[in-house]
Amino acid sequence: MDDFMQAAIAEAQAGLAEGGIPIGSVLVHRGVIIGRGHNRRVQQGSAILHGEMDALENAGRQSAQVYRESVLYTTLSPCAMCSGAILLYGIPKVVIGENVTFTGEEDLLRSRGVEIELLQDGTCIALMREFISQHPALWQEDIGETA
Amino acid sequence: MDDFMQAAIAEAQAGLAEGGIPIGSVLVHRGVIIGRGHNRRVQQGSAILHGEMDALENAGRQSAQVYRESVLYTTLSPCAMCSGAILLYGIPKVVIGENVTFTGEEDLLRSRGVEIELLQDGTCIALMREFISQHPALWQEDIGETA
Repeated sequence: MDDFMQAAIAEAQAGLAEGGIPIGSVLVHRGVIIGRGHNRRVQQGSAILHGEMDALENAGRQSAQVYRESVLYTTLSPCAMCSGAILLYGIPKVVIGENVTFTGEEDLLRSRGVEIELLQDGTCIALMREFISQHPALWQEDIGETA
Repeated sequence: MDDFMQAAIAEAQAGLAEGGIPIGSVLVHRGVIIGRGHNRRVQQGSAILHGEMDALENAGRQSAQVYRESVLYTTLSPCAMCSGAILLYGIPKVVIGENVTFTGEEDLLRSRGVEIELLQDGTCIALMREFISQHPALWQEDIGETA
């Protein structure tokens, strides 16, 4: 297992331990993690802090050049919002833990030239499968779906 | 002038008074403002709190149904990140103050069925024109552009 995906999974697990949605992410610049994050919907009552957004926020203000030399790791396929953030900042590559439990805007990202590496990692899948089965309404809220 | 766009402009002006980037937004549910926000890059060192994102965050956790009955007002054409958030939550309509100084992902939004109303408001244009001329590097950072 890639160390950076392992760090993203550790973020997801930290979120789960806090009672949150188990999705984690890290932003890696030239081989160094510059931002770590996990979904904060439950913990902070946040509508925008998905795992990827939290990692970007925790990386702080960066120049466009830094983003363009970075890779975003996320345990789950990025939704429209997180994909939009990837496009805004011109992040050239995204490594995705899994897209079995949710498939985000991978096609849009690819159509704009973003490289996607999909791991279909068993730990990532198990985290989301269990969470969704136990908290279906919370999960629907997080991805803007109606019951 | 529409009262809701006026409220978004007031947010932009509040951001400018704080030394920030003058972009504001309000989220309106069935004729009532449920979230107000403005760009917080300077004020909070934030990479993700564009005006629209701040309005969504300040609206708090909402069900998909609420978003689908809402209109987002923003003083400036929404970037990829903010457009992605609009798509995530299925917000059906966006009222845009202007797209002269920056044109975001309006085509993507339209292609997904989002209704766009573009005002080309002189106050919104003047706010951004003056800001960009005075702070070009900060503006480039906010939209992920290199110098």
